[in-house]
Amino acid sequence: MISYFDIFISSFFVLSLTQNGIESIKYEPNWKSIDSRPLPTWYDEGKIGIFLHWGVFSVPSYSNEWFWYRWQGPQPFPSVVNFMKNNYKPDFTYADFAKDFTVQEGIFKPDHWADIFNASGARYIVQVTKHHEGFTSWPSKYSFNWNAMDVGPKRDLVAEVSMAVRKYPNLRFGIYHSLYEWFHPLYLQDKNNSFKTQDFVFGKTLPELYELVNTYKPDVVWSDGCAGPDAYWNSTHFLAWLYNESPVKDTVVTNDRWGYGIPCHHGGFLTCHDHYNPGTLMTRKFENAMKLDWKSWGYRRDTTLKEVISIEKLLQDIAETISCNGNILINVGPTKDGAIAPIYEERLRQMGSWLQVNGEAVYKSRPWVFQNDTLTSGVWYTQRKDLKAVYAFLFNWPSGDLTLGAPQAMSETAVTLLGYPAPFTFTSLGSKGIVVHVPDIPFSKMPCSWMWVLKFTNLVN
Amino acid sequence: MISYFDIFISSFFVLSLTQNGIESIKYEPNWKSIDSRPLPTWYDEGKIGIFLHWGVFSVPSYSNEWFWYRWQGPQPFPSVVNFMKNNYKPDFTYADFAKDFTVQEGIFKPDHWADIFNASGARYIVQVTKHHEGFTSWPSKYSFNWNAMDVGPKRDLVAEVSMAVRKYPNLRFGIYHSLYEWFHPLYLQDKNNSFKTQDFVFGKTLPELYELVNTYKPDVVWSDGCAGPDAYWNSTHFLAWLYNESPVKDTVVTNDRWGYGIPCHHGGFLTCHDHYNPGTLMTRKFENAMKLDWKSWGYRRDTTLKEVISIEKLLQDIAETISCNGNILINVGPTKDGAIAPIYEERLRQMGSWLQVNGEAVYKSRPWVFQNDTLTSGVWYTQRKDLKAVYAFLFNWPSGDLTLGAPQAMSETAVTLLGYPAPFTFTSLGSKGIVVHVPDIPFSKMPCSWMWVLKFTNLVN
Amino acid sequence: MISYFDIFISSFFVLSLTQNGIESIKYEPNWKSIDSRPLPTWYDEGKIGIFLHWGVFSVPSYSNEWFWYRWQGPQPFPSVVNFMKNNYKPDFTYADFAKDFTVQEGIFKPDHWADIFNASGARYIVQVTKHHEGFTSWPSKYSFNWNAMDVGPKRDLVAEVSMAVRKYPNLRFGIYHSLYEWFHPLYLQDKNNSFKTQDFVFGKTLPELYELVNTYKPDVVWSDGCAGPDAYWNSTHFLAWLYNESPVKDTVVTNDRWGYGIPCHHGGFLTCHDHYNPGTLMTRKFENAMKLDWKSWGYRRDTTLKEVISIEKLLQDIAETISCNGNILINVGPTKDGAIAPIYEERLRQMGSWLQVNGEAVYKSRPWVFQNDTLTSGVWYTQRKDLKAVYAFLFNWPSGDLTLGAPQAMSETAVTLLGYPAPFTFTSLGSKGIVVHVPDIPFSKMPCSWMWVLKFTNLVN
Amino acid sequence: MISYFDIFISSFFVLSLTQNGIESIKYEPNWKSIDSRPLPTWYDEGKIGIFLHWGVFSVPSYSNEWFWYRWQGPQPFPSVVNFMKNNYKPDFTYADFAKDFTVQEGIFKPDHWADIFNASGARYIVQVTKHHEGFTSWPSKYSFNWNAMDVGPKRDLVAEVSMAVRKYPNLRFGIYHSLYEWFHPLYLQDKNNSFKTQDFVFGKTLPELYELVNTYKPDVVWSDGCAGPDAYWNSTHFLAWLYNESPVKDTVVTNDRWGYGIPCHHGGFLTCHDHYNPGTLMTRKFENAMKLDWKSWGYRRDTTLKEVISIEKLLQDIAETISCNGNILINVGPTKDGAIAPIYEERLRQMGSWLQVNGEAVYKSRPWVFQNDTLTSGVWYTQRKDLKAVYAFLFNWPSGDLTLGAPQAMSETAVTLLGYPAPFTFTSLGSKGIVVHVPDIPFSKMPCSWMWVLKFTNLVN
Repeated sequence: MISYFDIFISSFFVLSLTQNGIESIKYEPNWKSIDSRPLPTWYDEGKIGIFLHWGVFSVPSYSNEWFWYRWQGPQPFPSVVNFMKNNYKPDFTYADFAKDFTVQEGIFKPDHWADIFNASGARYIVQVTKHHEGFTSWPSKYSFNWNAMDVGPKRDLVAEVSMAVRKYPNLRFGIYHSLYEWFHPLYLQDKNNSFKTQDFVFGKTLPELYELVNTYKPDVVWSDGCAGPDAYWNSTHFLAWLYNESPVKDTVVTNDRWGYGIPCHHGGFLTCHDHYNPGTLMTRKFENAMKLDWKSWGYRRDTTLKEVISIEKLLQDIAETISCNGNILINVGPTKDGAIAPIYEERLRQMGSWLQVNGEAVYKSRPWVFQNDTLTSGVWYTQRKDLKAVYAFLFNWPSGDLTLGAPQAMSETAVTLLGYPAPFTFTSLGSKGIVVHVPDIPFSKMPCSWMWVLKFTNLVN
Repeated sequence: MISYFDIFISSFFVLSLTQNGIESIKYEPNWKSIDSRPLPTWYDEGKIGIFLHWGVFSVPSYSNEWFWYRWQGPQPFPSVVNFMKNNYKPDFTYADFAKDFTVQEGIFKPDHWADIFNASGARYIVQVTKHHEGFTSWPSKYSFNWNAMDVGPKRDLVAEVSMAVRKYPNLRFGIYHSLYEWFHPLYLQDKNNSFKTQDFVFGKTLPELYELVNTYKPDVVWSDGCAGPDAYWNSTHFLAWLYNESPVKDTVVTNDRWGYGIPCHHGGFLTCHDHYNPGTLMTRKFENAMKLDWKSWGYRRDTTLKEVISIEKLLQDIAETISCNGNILINVGPTKDGAIAPIYEERLRQMGSWLQVNGEAVYKSRPWVFQNDTLTSGVWYTQRKDLKAVYAFLFNWPSGDLTLGAPQAMSETAVTLLGYPAPFTFTSLGSKGIVVHVPDIPFSKMPCSWMWVLKFTNLVN
Repeated sequence: MISYFDIFISSFFVLSLTQNGIESIKYEPNWKSIDSRPLPTWYDEGKIGIFLHWGVFSVPSYSNEWFWYRWQGPQPFPSVVNFMKNNYKPDFTYADFAKDFTVQEGIFKPDHWADIFNASGARYIVQVTKHHEGFTSWPSKYSFNWNAMDVGPKRDLVAEVSMAVRKYPNLRFGIYHSLYEWFHPLYLQDKNNSFKTQDFVFGKTLPELYELVNTYKPDVVWSDGCAGPDAYWNSTHFLAWLYNESPVKDTVVTNDRWGYGIPCHHGGFLTCHDHYNPGTLMTRKFENAMKLDWKSWGYRRDTTLKEVISIEKLLQDIAETISCNGNILINVGPTKDGAIAPIYEERLRQMGSWLQVNGEAVYKSRPWVFQNDTLTSGVWYTQRKDLKAVYAFLFNWPSGDLTLGAPQAMSETAVTLLGYPAPFTFTSLGSKGIVVHVPDIPFSKMPCSWMWVLKFTNLVN
Repeated sequence: MISYFDIFISSFFVLSLTQNGIESIKYEPNWKSIDSRPLPTWYDEGKIGIFLHWGVFSVPSYSNEWFWYRWQGPQPFPSVVNFMKNNYKPDFTYADFAKDFTVQEGIFKPDHWADIFNASGARYIVQVTKHHEGFTSWPSKYSFNWNAMDVGPKRDLVAEVSMAVRKYPNLRFGIYHSLYEWFHPLYLQDKNNSFKTQDFVFGKTLPELYELVNTYKPDVVWSDGCAGPDAYWNSTHFLAWLYNESPVKDTVVTNDRWGYGIPCHHGGFLTCHDHYNPGTLMTRKFENAMKLDWKSWGYRRDTTLKEVISIEKLLQDIAETISCNGNILINVGPTKDGAIAPIYEERLRQMGSWLQVNGEAVYKSRPWVFQNDTLTSGVWYTQRKDLKAVYAFLFNWPSGDLTLGAPQAMSETAVTLLGYPAPFTFTSLGSKGIVVHVPDIPFSKMPCSWMWVLKFTNLVN
């Protein structure tokens, strides 16, 4: 067994060698080198992931997963402060919640989770293994008595979820990990020292990351909470190790949240900010992390229906995102007992039923020259070069003729509705577009009830 | 203030007078007299009620609301026994759950509940005020320290729900009350005495019923748990008081669960057994009590989507029930914190949106001569004599021609689709029925997405 | 099985017979008759009992056993209100405490209790089976879910304690029972009705008393909480049943707390008020109920040493009490877990070691003509007519000569120190008393370290 | 602010300098140098300390403070395993106990503690700040969410106790700290690595020690749990810092538990093993750490009287210990709520009352040439050279003549009983000893009731 100090030093040594050019294929601990690594193809092809926010914040399951910070951070939210005052004893601490993170036997069924994820059509899962609260969902050596084995669940939640997910060949497993922790005294000390000391990084953050990657071999390392310079976090060294030496060096993807100023600029795919949905083509691969409950990533006990995204809006977000070169990461927050609420199961299964019909336009697709239509709003595009096809995602069902400005038809062009047997007729407007003649399809013959996809083959453009 | 002994004796005295014919409009404490009372009209006209199962069983929220009985009754369910063994300390008692019936400030919003109920199109609410566990949701004088004010919620749940509901003029408030209690030692003693002693009835059941009616003035008294002869329960005396003397004597409706052999035979409307959906015309008014989670009346933390009724099936149940002279009582189980899960809110609001279009065929309707169609399955009927209309509820969308065996058209007959502007053409088959020519309506013009209602006016029959 | 109504009515019937003189040895339900019953001799001979205050109040174990009333009664104690505010959540109820009345396996050892009681030299135990809080320590049929089997201990505490106690032939078992309950809604209703209704008495108090006596066959029925007229409580009828019909009619003793104005006047032995220690001879047998922790009958977690009675003071209280015709009932409050704190065990065992030496002057003794000495303070007397002996209890060790005014010596008179072999010499002062010449006994020969007993035989008086 | 890495490195640097002789008064990080430091005189003069075991183990307060290890260590105790099985839910973890380490407002009164300590006559307090369970009683930066501020008490227990103690000029404050932690994964990792890695030492143990000393400035650093080589623990470096640089370098004393093989050989005073009471003169200062409850250092809820040391035995232990050059450290375990049980308060105040009379023979005393008497057992000696006095502690009260073999009288010799006014006569046996003629002192003139001290002045030896 090797200590984390040794791990760090040995990785540094290897990288020194690469600076001398001896092993030229190694990535170096600087952003230029890190950024040069191509993303493994599975990621772009998969398009859709599911984000799982599950932690001690799932116990109060009120306000959102920033509960602790909103309660006891520098600018408390009155609603959260009152919630605690009204419902708990005066000296209740956040850590006291952990005891009630029950993940009860009989309620928590990871195989049922995995079945939902698989049925949803998603291709990867990103589980929160440590949020800003610092509670580790796995039995970390570096979080004694503040982890899911020592208090609350008494389980290795990362092991249980990853094993269930990996039974499905279509699903890959990834982890979310917060670099900083709101209230960790060593982080606060380092911060007070203007990040000139790194006690927190070497004693907590990095050892955890190495432990996570070595133990669970995730295909996604989704970093967050980069409240400090990347030099403080030692980010490029970790990433060089991840890309050169780690057990997942060939398959892993990472994001961009690795230090002040790094998001939207460096790393793997770009997440920039939450709900990043730029609406225009991005040259670099990005990911739109969004959520089914628009008020919270973590489960809320008082979520009302109007706060849950409709299936129509969810599908539209998918279309917009992938049209612009993004993946979408759809968040669901399980309950403290280990259940996925039926409303979220419904949305995910609705998405899966839609993808059963329309997945051809999503998986392995690439952005087209146009992202959305030039004449009609609510129409977004992707293409499949392998199939010589362009796909138009229609937010609304067109009654009668649909005029589109982007597609330029030629004689070989064909227009179909995914999931419907007969081709549609159309009238070419040349470089000005096309008019698709949409028939009155009886309700019982409609391929789906929300967002429909037209497929154009052999277009001019 | 008067004791419950006095109440009982005084009501008995009044009824003695009626036996002498002095006050001839009074109901007598026998089933013939009780059964002779007409149901107040609001009940039949309203058609749809919402049932609320909420109690200490909402704390384990596992298995179903019979949790206690399944755990410690004569024939324990292994799943429940194991659930307790795995998740609780050895000497945990059912009463210990009460402490966690939190109904948390910030989660429980009765006005939000009432908004959902009103939006659902239901016309009355029936709240469980005491289930077989014996816990009273109101601060009963007869259930010291086993009621919602003394333990757990520390609230009068009946007062809070009823007040919120009554803000909506379309909604009436009713109460469910269990006569017996599984484990009450006085009930068990009376039962062991072959119901020859009535300590439980006079010390607990009847005082509670008088207290409930006098305090909350419910428009529905939904009795349950009639495990004993009606003479034991003193049922007819209570009902005579309810009909003659009580503050709700003019508006109240009751059901039929008032003693061994009484359900399906005596009382107010008949409920017979749970999910009573006879499928043929009933001469006497009945009520189909059914539930959104088909496994449980109480909230379950592990409900999965496939255990939640689909909106399609829910609407079909409504159609079948009212076609046969029934009301439907749709159950939802709130959480121990006081929330209605979004999936149930969704079903209720979906129902409400459907009733916005199709309520004409439901409220104030009466059974027609035919309940369902003689030729085509999945078609059920109601009528509105005031509108000279017959309504056909179509479970499936008919492509093209729809042949029905029941309606007999004449020249003045018109056929329309509720929510759609243009009438449909049809071909009369005389006494053999009618062929309705259903056009291909574009998706965007459809009045609803589930169960459609054809309206026939001026039929022969 | 017979209901409590039957029990009441049948006992009434028997008593009616006695009014007709048919069974002349029966006691009648009036105070004159009740008071005429002689106390069973075991009681006066035993002299010392142990009182056990153990209930839900043992959970907060703060302030005293009136915790609930001091918290939420009409005149709240700020200290108790603040204690709750500081340590519990806002909607915590008193009933919520019951869950933590753990009586833990491994802590509660009734045989160890009984060993302490027996070693203490006490002759009877009086266990609180229901205090004013209403929680019954036995599984009463009349206190569903507010008893020790349904919540908290999940045990029959009365059964467990009584069985352990009865293994010792010197110990008798008795029960304390509160007639009223501070917050029981039926009691409050009856009280509001100026005690003209008796719902609480017939539904709760009397059934409990019959149940207790029939089930546990106590030799003491120690009534308390007589906040109502004795006619309201039906006290004389119950006592007539207890004396005529009950399974303990020949051995049971009762006290005097049976209704407004009754204490100090009627019943069995008189308790008058707590800590009743009149200091002068009482013609009627009384009992001084006092406690080891002078601030509380129930266990307190914050008791300090100076609040615990010293062994010296305890022994003095015994001497004063029995000199005046009293028994003493010494209270100890066990912990919620079921332990007797070592400090109380120490006091009780110290008392036992003292009684080993001096019990001759206590058990079976009777008051003497003098209660305390006429010349020297801190000297109290008893006598044993069977032994022709008078005993002087000396609170302080007399250095040299001790002059006493009460004893009148004659030639046959002998003076000894209990536990010391050699007699003491003395000088008679005739009717003016006696001077006892107390030798300097070396420390290692002293029979005890606190309160010493001189024995005079063959006195003139 | 400086990180602990800096502290370590800077202390190392200073010590390098001392190796070059530049600062010759500095202690070097080796045992020879560490051992050469004289103990500050206050420690030997004070003789009596009080040990406080208070931590999460005070919550189960069953078995003893090794509860966790006995429950889940390599060789579980069936009694503890059963205790958990019988009283807690299956997945209860040790960390779950922390929530119930309440230290309740209204129960915990540190000023009352300090009053007891001061009244006991002790001169220093040693508080357990971290036991082998790893829970820190102060808000350590190195024990996030496993310390008394983050869970349970929500207080800085070290600050509160130390401040209360320091209000008394006679009392000094010290801390107990366990180097290892039974279940800390980094410790277990280092141990598995044969202590070749030191992640636990540099990440946890040493930072804690520096933090404790710098924050609370203790006069005693009582190390324990030295399960590893002293080189692993870096002990001599820490001690050199403590003696050279720390804010308590002039007053602090330490013990000997600093690594495998170190106890009884190196450090400050020797503790060797618990209850170290060698019975013969030790050349090096030692400390006898013993406890009032002989079964446990931590509070037990089920302690019985016979398990509590008698005042007689306690005083004898003091005499034996100080006769042989030891200090005694008397342990008491407070409750989880923050109370000191009255039985322990009684023992401590009894000791204090004894020291009021006999303290002259204890404080500032030194061992005499004889430790116990050569002829009579139960007699132990100390001397005060400043007073030319030798003191004999008599376990039993001598009736009549007391023959002692050790003291050799001469003409100026005087013999008195501490607390008694008149001198005793004696007969010298020359070098064979002395016969003291003990008078029959009446009980009321005895200076104390347990262990008496003869004072010899001007002996030959």
